[in-house]
This record gives sequence, C-alpha cells and structure tokens, in this order.
Amino acid sequence: MEFNSGTGDLIYSFAEKLYPICRSITGDGLRQTLKILQSELPLVLHEVPTGTPVLDWTIPKEWNIKEAWVKGPNGDKIIDFRNHNLHILNYSIPVHAQMDLQELKKHLFSLPEQPDLIPYRTSYYKENWGFCLAHRQLEQLPDGTYEVFIDSSLKKGSLTYGELFIPGKLREEILFSAHVCHPSLANDNLSGIGLLTQLAKQLLEKNNRYSFRFLFIPGTIGSIAWLALNEEKIKNIKAGLVASLLGDSGSFTYKKSRRGDTEIDRIVSYVLSHSNKPYSIKDFFPYGYDERQFCSPGFNLAVGNLTRSQFGEYPEYHTSGDNLDLIQPIFLEESFQLFEKVVKCMDQNKYYRNLQPKGEPQLGKRGLYEAIGGQSDQKQLQLAMLWILNMADGQHSLLDIAIQSGIAFDLLHKISQILEKKELIEEIP
Amino acid sequence: MEFNSGTGDLIYSFAEKLYPICRSITGDGLRQTLKILQSELPLVLHEVPTGTPVLDWTIPKEWNIKEAWVKGPNGDKIIDFRNHNLHILNYSIPVHAQMDLQELKKHLFSLPEQPDLIPYRTSYYKENWGFCLAHRQLEQLPDGTYEVFIDSSLKKGSLTYGELFIPGKLREEILFSAHVCHPSLANDNLSGIGLLTQLAKQLLEKNNRYSFRFLFIPGTIGSIAWLALNEEKIKNIKAGLVASLLGDSGSFTYKKSRRGDTEIDRIVSYVLSHSNKPYSIKDFFPYGYDERQFCSPGFNLAVGNLTRSQFGEYPEYHTSGDNLDLIQPIFLEESFQLFEKVVKCMDQNKYYRNLQPKGEPQLGKRGLYEAIGGQSDQKQLQLAMLWILNMADGQHSLLDIAIQSGIAFDLLHKISQILEKKELIEEIP
Amino acid sequence: MEFNSGTGDLIYSFAEKLYPICRSITGDGLRQTLKILQSELPLVLHEVPTGTPVLDWTIPKEWNIKEAWVKGPNGDKIIDFRNHNLHILNYSIPVHAQMDLQELKKHLFSLPEQPDLIPYRTSYYKENWGFCLAHRQLEQLPDGTYEVFIDSSLKKGSLTYGELFIPGKLREEILFSAHVCHPSLANDNLSGIGLLTQLAKQLLEKNNRYSFRFLFIPGTIGSIAWLALNEEKIKNIKAGLVASLLGDSGSFTYKKSRRGDTEIDRIVSYVLSHSNKPYSIKDFFPYGYDERQFCSPGFNLAVGNLTRSQFGEYPEYHTSGDNLDLIQPIFLEESFQLFEKVVKCMDQNKYYRNLQPKGEPQLGKRGLYEAIGGQSDQKQLQLAMLWILNMADGQHSLLDIAIQSGIAFDLLHKISQILEKKELIEEIP
Repeated sequence: MEFNSGTGDLIYSFAEKLYPICRSITGDGLRQTLKILQSELPLVLHEVPTGTPVLDWTIPKEWNIKEAWVKGPNGDKIIDFRNHNLHILNYSIPVHAQMDLQELKKHLFSLPEQPDLIPYRTSYYKENWGFCLAHRQLEQLPDGTYEVFIDSSLKKGSLTYGELFIPGKLREEILFSAHVCHPSLANDNLSGIGLLTQLAKQLLEKNNRYSFRFLFIPGTIGSIAWLALNEEKIKNIKAGLVASLLGDSGSFTYKKSRRGDTEIDRIVSYVLSHSNKPYSIKDFFPYGYDERQFCSPGFNLAVGNLTRSQFGEYPEYHTSGDNLDLIQPIFLEESFQLFEKVVKCMDQNKYYRNLQPKGEPQLGKRGLYEAIGGQSDQKQLQLAMLWILNMADGQHSLLDIAIQSGIAFDLLHKISQILEKKELIEEIP
Repeated sequence: MEFNSGTGDLIYSFAEKLYPICRSITGDGLRQTLKILQSELPLVLHEVPTGTPVLDWTIPKEWNIKEAWVKGPNGDKIIDFRNHNLHILNYSIPVHAQMDLQELKKHLFSLPEQPDLIPYRTSYYKENWGFCLAHRQLEQLPDGTYEVFIDSSLKKGSLTYGELFIPGKLREEILFSAHVCHPSLANDNLSGIGLLTQLAKQLLEKNNRYSFRFLFIPGTIGSIAWLALNEEKIKNIKAGLVASLLGDSGSFTYKKSRRGDTEIDRIVSYVLSHSNKPYSIKDFFPYGYDERQFCSPGFNLAVGNLTRSQFGEYPEYHTSGDNLDLIQPIFLEESFQLFEKVVKCMDQNKYYRNLQPKGEPQLGKRGLYEAIGGQSDQKQLQLAMLWILNMADGQHSLLDIAIQSGIAFDLLHKISQILEKKELIEEIP
Repeated sequence: MEFNSGTGDLIYSFAEKLYPICRSITGDGLRQTLKILQSELPLVLHEVPTGTPVLDWTIPKEWNIKEAWVKGPNGDKIIDFRNHNLHILNYSIPVHAQMDLQELKKHLFSLPEQPDLIPYRTSYYKENWGFCLAHRQLEQLPDGTYEVFIDSSLKKGSLTYGELFIPGKLREEILFSAHVCHPSLANDNLSGIGLLTQLAKQLLEKNNRYSFRFLFIPGTIGSIAWLALNEEKIKNIKAGLVASLLGDSGSFTYKKSRRGDTEIDRIVSYVLSHSNKPYSIKDFFPYGYDERQFCSPGFNLAVGNLTRSQFGEYPEYHTSGDNLDLIQPIFLEESFQLFEKVVKCMDQNKYYRNLQPKGEPQLGKRGLYEAIGGQSDQKQLQLAMLWILNMADGQHSLLDIAIQSGIAFDLLHKISQILEKKELIEEIP
C-alpha cells in the first residue's frame, strides 16, 4: 500500500470548506453540502418529498434558517446563530417574542459539566425552538426581559441525499455510508464525508472487482429513506462500512456488523491486527450511526462501523469542541489508508480451487520450486505456495489462509496470481 | 423479586416436623411423610405394588419397622432404634439372636474417620440386617454375648409417591423433584421437600404460563417408577430441577443437565451469575440424585440439580451430622428465592418477533423516545428498547438479549411488555 | 501396556545395519534396504517403472552409484564417497573432469554455520552433480587443479517401495508410513523404519480389529506413486501416522492431520496428555514428510505425523550429525510404546449403545454394584459403569467418555467389556 501523500490534507481542506455550513436532515445547508461534493464526485442527488412514507417513518418537513438571536435586557445580542451554527436548536420553529429569563431558560441548552462548550441539540420530530450556549454564559445571564428571534421555516419540501454507484466486474457491491446532517461538527460527519469522497475518487479511477455504492445521507431518516426506496438493490450489498469519527487522535474502533463474522468483519479485524497499533473491536450494539438501520433485523446487512474514537465516547462529542482543531490531516490520512487496505483486501480475498488437488503438484518442473532439495530453511515463497495449494479447496479464502498460516495476505495474493497463471489453481466465482 | 419474609422459617418448621419420621423407599414412614405434605398441598398419592416391573427394576417388598435394639453382655440396650433412626440399617430384615462381639461386628457400621457420627446405610436390594453407630462407641464394646432384636417386616405392599400437577397456559411443563426416602437427614431430603412445598403453594396461587409438576418420590426407584408409569407425559417436560441440599451454609452449586445447554441450564447460570455471590456450575455427571434417571440416555431430559453444598461433598453428608442444626432458615430462604427467580425467568423468557423489522421503528411518534435528540447519554430504557427491537428476530429469547446486551433481564422483560402493547413486537409461541 | 523389554535395542540394531547403505528415491541402495526389511516382515516389494505418470509427477530415472571422489592438486583424494554417503550430491550424474577450485566450488555444498558437519543435499529432478563436505574442509582447499570422478548411472529402471497389509476384522485400515530414501541419516528415516518394522511384527501376531497397512516408501515421489496406483484402497484408510524422527532425545511432537479433529488426532492427543511428559501438538502445515501428500486437499486423509524433535527443528537435521550417536535405544523404546498405546487405543475406541437406556439399569441384581448402598465414597469402577451407561448413546466413543469423565481409557475399556458381557451395552459397528 503506497503512501498517498497529501490525502489527509485534501480531506482536511474539504472539512474546512464544509465546516461553516449549517446542515440538518433537510434543507439548503444539506443541499449545499452535497453540491460541493458534486464538484469532486459524479454524485447523483435525490430529493425525497416531505410526507413520503419510508418504512415506519415519514419524510419530515424541510427546515431552513436565516437568522436567530437572543437580545438581553440591555438590547445587546447575547446569542447569535451567525456566530455558531450550534447556537440554534436544530429544527427550531420560527419565533419572535419577549420573555423573562425564567421562561427563556426552558429553551436554553447547556452542558454544566463542560461549561465552555456549546452543545449540539436537535428536535426533528417534535416542534420546539431553542438555543444552545456555553453553561458559563448561561449562568451569568441577568434577570430581565429578553427578545428572542428565529427566522426559520418548516415547510413542505424534501430530504436530499447523494449517491454514487461505481460499477465493478461483479454485481455484488460494497456500501460506504456517511451521515451529512450535522452542522459545524468536524470529526462527527465531516471526517467521514471527506474520507469517503477521496476513497470514491480513487475507486472511480480503477477497474474494480466489486461494485461500490457511496451514500451521503442525513443520519437515521436518510438511511431509512434509502433503504425504503431501494429495496431491490439491497440483495446485492455484500458488505459495507459506515464512516465517521475518522479525524481525531484516538485509536481505531471497529464495531462489527450484527452478524458479527461476515467477511468485512474478518477483514477489518485482520487489517487492524496487522497494523501494529492499538485498536479495539466491539460486538454490534443497536445504537450509534446508520449501521443501526442497515443492521436492523429485517435487513441484517454485513455493515460495520469504523471509527477512531468511538461514538459518544470522546469529550467533544456533540459539542462545539468537535471542531477543526479536533481533527488533523495525519489522522485523516491514517484512517484513509486503513479504508484503502480494507478495500484492497476485500477486492483480493478470493476463493481458489487447486486444480491438482491429489498430492502436491510438482512445483519444480514448473520452475516454481528450487531444484536443489533438502535444505532446512525453506523459503517463505515456497511456503506460501504450499499453503495455498493445500487450502485451495473452495472452502478457504485467501484471508482464511493468511490467518491459518500466519503468512502475510499480500504475499499470498501475489503467489495466488502466480499459481493461477501456472494453471495450478482457479478462482471460484 | 420481593423478599418472601418467613418462607425460610416455614421450610425450617416443616423440616422439624418431618425430621423424626423413619422414612425409607417404601413403608409407613414414607406414607406418613407424604400425608403431612398433603396438609399443605393437594398432592395425589400413588401406590405402586410390590413386584411391579418398572423399566429395568422391580418394585421391592415394602419395609416397615417397629423396634430394634442391641443388648450388651450386661443386658443394657447399647443401641436402640428409638434413639436415632439412623441406628438401623435401612431395610434390615427381622432378627432375634444372640451372638458374640465378633459375629455382631459383621453387622455394625461406623465411620472411623468421623468417630462421633452415626452413618446412614441401606440395603434395599440385598437382604441383610445391621446397626449403625458412632465409631467411638463401636471401639468400646466389650467382648461377650450380645442380644440383637429387630422387629421389622419385609412384605408385599407398595411404593408410595406424591405428585402435584399445576396446569398452566402451556401444555409444556417444568418438573420439580425431591427425594423423600431418607430418614432423619435434614439437608439431604428435608430441605428440598420443604422448599418445593412452599414453591408449589406459591405457584398454585398464580396463573402460570408453563404447567408445573412436583414429584415427591423415593430416590432412584421412585423416579424410575414414575418414568416407567408416565412415559406419555415425558414429552411435555421442557425443563426441570432436582431439589436437594438447600439448607446448609454452602454456596450454590448447579449441576447441569446432560444436554448441558438447555434453557434451564442457561437460566440457572444467568440467575447465579447475577446473584453477586459465589457459586459453582458443574457439567453433568452420572451419579448424584434423580437427575441420573431423568438424564439417562433414553430420556435425556433437560433436568439439572440445584443444591447448596454438592452431593457427597460436605462432611455431614449421609451421617447423623446432617441434622436440624446443619440447616438454617436464612439459607433455606435464600435457596427459595433462587428457585423463585429461576421460575420467574423461565416464565418470562419469551421469544419475540419485531413487527417493524426493517429499519428502526420511529419510537418518538409512539412516545417511546425522548423527543430531544442528540444527547450523548442515552438512557437505559431506550437501550433496552433498541436491543429488543434489534434482536427480536425469533432466534433470540429475552435471556439471550440480556446476556448479549448486559441489560438486566427484569428490565428487558418490562420493556418487552411495553413494546408488545405498542404492537412493535409479538410473542412467538 | 507391558514394557516391551528390548524393543528399543532391536530398533537400534536394525538402524545400525541399515545405516551404511546409500539410499535414494530409486536404485539398489533402496532395494537392498527393503530386502533387509523382508528378512523381518513379509513385505511385498513393488517396482514402478521410470516414466510412469503418477498424479502430477513422473517416476524419474533410476539412480545408482559405485564410486565418487575428488582429488586435490597434489593427487590425494580429498573427498571420497566411500568415507560417507552424504559426500555425494544425491542423484549426481556421472562426471570425470579436471577443473580449478573456482569451478569446482560451484559443485560443493557445505554449512558455514555448522562447519564440522557434512550437509545432505539432493537434486532429483534437475540434472546436476556435486559433493557435500564440512565447511572447515572447504575453506582450507588450496588453489590448483582438481580431478573429479563420479561413477554413477541415471537410467531407465524403477522406483521400489515396500508394502505390508495385515488384514483385520474390519475392512477399515490404519496406515503407517515411513520414508526409506535417506542415505546415512539415523533419526530421519532409520528410526521410523525400525520402529514400524517392530510394530508390524507385533501386529502380525495378533487378531486385530482394524486392518493395518505399512508403507516403506521413498519420500514424496513414493507416497505420490502409492496414492496414484492405489486409489481404490484410499477410501478404506480410516487413519494413519507418518513415522519419523523417533530416536532422538527430544520430547514428542504431534502434527495433526489437515482435518485436525479426526479420531487419530484425538487419540494421539489423549495418549500424549496422559504420558506425564512434555509434548507439543501442532496444527497441520503443508510441509514436512509424506503427510503432505496424504493430506493434500484431493485426499485429505486423517493422517498425522508423530515425531520426537520436529521436522527441520534440530541442529543435526539433514547433516552428518544425524548419525547413530543421535539416536538411543531408550528413546526408540519410548517412541515404540507410544505407537503401541495409540494402536491399542484406536483398536479399543468403540461406540456402544446402552441396551437399557431408560433410567439406570439395576446394577445390583447383576452383581455389578455393591449391595450396601449409601456410602459416600463411590468406587471408581462403579463410576466407570455409570459413565459408560450414561454416554453410550452411539454418539460418544470410549475416548469421548474418557475425556469427559476423566476416568482412564484403560479402565473404561475393561468396564465396557464387562457391561457388554452382561448385555447392558452393545457395540455399534
């Protein structure tokens, strides 16, 4: 795996570009984000109208916001949406009113234990309005009359998502999904969006064995909408990864698919175990990102979630602390390379059949074996050949052979190609 | 599980009442014991005549005893059955004779390593007579002529056992069995008899999902007789426990059924592992109590054995030391509560099917989910819902979900009832 | 298992007799070796003509050698095949030439890291000539003109192997195989040849349940030839062991069959685990001895490899250090006894069916159980009976019962015979 110099920087720059946009599960911020993605990828944008039933859910009204502020008793704007997208309770309905501090506080959200951070709050499915602010500021608000103004709209419209299908030799496809609904949160959504963008660009330039599908979707309702509207495609999904939290300094965390021992689960585990870095692997649990939907029992897809820090487990999670300082090109780069390795391993993990299964084939006469026998230090190449020939019974993939033999997957892949050329093994479709 | 104040005391008092009776595998002591049980439970008494073939066995003659003593050279009664039921070799034939010490000693049983205790010995299937006594006494017997008198009878009669069937909604039944053949032994038989009596009383007052069957039977020959005479009922036995050794201070021991991974095995293991107390779990072995018969290969029932100290593993086992001082209400109480929890868990351990299996159902619109999303500390209730919904695929019982999620079974049970009311899941029969 | 006094000595003497012969994969040294074996066993010798296609291979030309030496610049023989069989590159073509040291060195083989040992080298399938010598000697060779003479022949002929079939009650057979192609190497081939010779002699004198087949074959090409020419017999091979490296002081190593959990794998593991000596068990790997061929995926036989030191893992491996000093009668004896135990356990490892599977049979009435019940220390014999009766369901062999119960296999075997006589169990064919 060559070092893709600069991919981390590219992902970081992309995150910088998208950071200021106020995204939500619908609306122009989301749409604008996807249009910027279209400048990088031939992404197809889908608009699902408000009211469309999708599985157990209904596409909600479209939300847009222009302005939102709170003026204090002295008339100064003490909270202003222009200063930070997180100040507004996402999906706040329009309001313009005056009220005393006690009434206002019912609509203010803060984090007493992280008093300098603005929390990220939403109210998609229950009409409400509110502001989020640092607890330190909340505590210092004087009594008096406050003016509240939210110029938002909640109207019939549509939910937007982006989709890119890259056909490969096989109809079976690998799914990559990132949520695109979070406003100014860098690790939690922008890192995944940027990484998948670069991964898709790279795959577009290759002849791939598997087909690939990239989804850039609002969390939960987006994956539910896609699943509802694309049921005929689901049977082709052989494996998938939900990409998120890929720019922070934490070590990698892989949350397995619900099935737990699918090929993608084994490949990610294998690649992580050969990374010489700390990592952790978790069994599936039914909360987190969109793997919740892909792994709901009615679909039960082989989709895992690959992150650095885990969902909900780092202090800046869902706060203004999840900003462009939290993510770094070096970590994005490393995450990208991990995804690349997983894709490559998936691509190369074939099943072979030994065409000379009775006894060992005579390697020497094919120039595959040193002619001088009897040496006590047999070479790794010869071992790789012997392992593949012995286990190529259609029951063991190259990954299985790598795990059982302890020989590096990459070497086994190279040797398998040589053996295939020599017509000693053939791939099993 | 509420604290059943006083159940331990009830069991203890019952043991006190039964302790003086000289039980055996047949006879009036056994019959009297079962009649006392009838004062507590609507027990049906069965009499199986001597000579009845039962599986590989035959119901033996009925044994009864009135009097038994040994008089020493000076004419004093040195051993007297009236002083302790264990003094007589159980099933001793009648005898009245004089003999010297050497001849007498062939019929005396003691425990050299526990010189103050009277052993418990039987000779059901080989006609013999004998006396059991403390080794310390045995050693001090002077030479001389002894007079031996046993006024017993071994005649055609019947073997008596008690049975109580409590019908539930399901035809499938849970079997509880205790042996009732031991004379004055408190932990080894009276603790189990008393505990099951209270458990049956409690279940009689409830509408139960499963049916329950309680057997109070002489050890070995009693279970063999029941199995022989009730083969048509055996197919309904879903699970069972043999109850014994439940009043001593030892920690709990569960001996699994022969099959080893049946529902009762998993439930007892789960309940013990959540008891915050030491316990041990043993694989099945083919000696011990009546689980030997229930788990013989031709039946292979899901019947385990739940005790405190293990069969044969405490010093007072099968001696006069297994008396009313060895058992205590507090331990009987704790054992009773364990049985209650097992019964409750068995009762509640259902399989459900998610009725909205594709994607997560929208909990919010059903009032099941906090409307304000985005909080990093999701509540245990919500987790329980998500776990059940995700795993309710007909393959996982509530117990499976409890084990996999780490969420308490009781909470999952409560939540499953809410989800069932909301028509999000349905029980699979 | 009685102590077979002297078997180790017999094997050692036999190794002494065979040590001086220059064996190869064909030729008169091999033939002479097998004829000496015929003096001990009714071995059938097979000759497979040069050019015969065998699986992916072809029987090579037959090689024979009379004389081979190198004369130094001063005319002295500095290397002489008469001094050590390993001096000649096995399968060297004839040559008679003069050359300078630089040219000669292209045909000299030594071990720089073991400078006093002569290496063992072969060139069966690529025509070449060469000499092997101690590195210390190689380094001291003066410049000058050398005379090289090899009086060998490489002509149409045949490959010889020896086979002994010992019919048993069952058509199913146990295969034992040793390679017989190595020249003066004691542990690596003579130890296995000698041990199997004694084992075969012993089995010839018994009425065996299984049939046995002994192969004395040249490595690789010999097993490939046998497999190619005997495909109809392969289906009867229930298990097998490749015997080699059985005379050195190392602890036992068992390399499992490719299938890994066959009866022979479990038996060897069991016997080793009850040997009270260190040992190691390895998963199958596709290099080593002829188990490579027997376990190729097209055959996948239940054949393991039982050695003391492992293939390639002792310093004298494939050098002149693997001589008669490396092996000792005491280790050969111990290895022989291990093979005997494995054979005995295989022979006795039967599946039984309990003929009274419902409830326990009444052991007492058959004189199988102590009539005086109630004793707390039940005897090992009774336990063995109960274990067999409980597990004799046709699913568990005596070995399974030994492993699960912890009762010695030998005792279970004895008890099974008693129970069979009493018609409580019957063998399942």
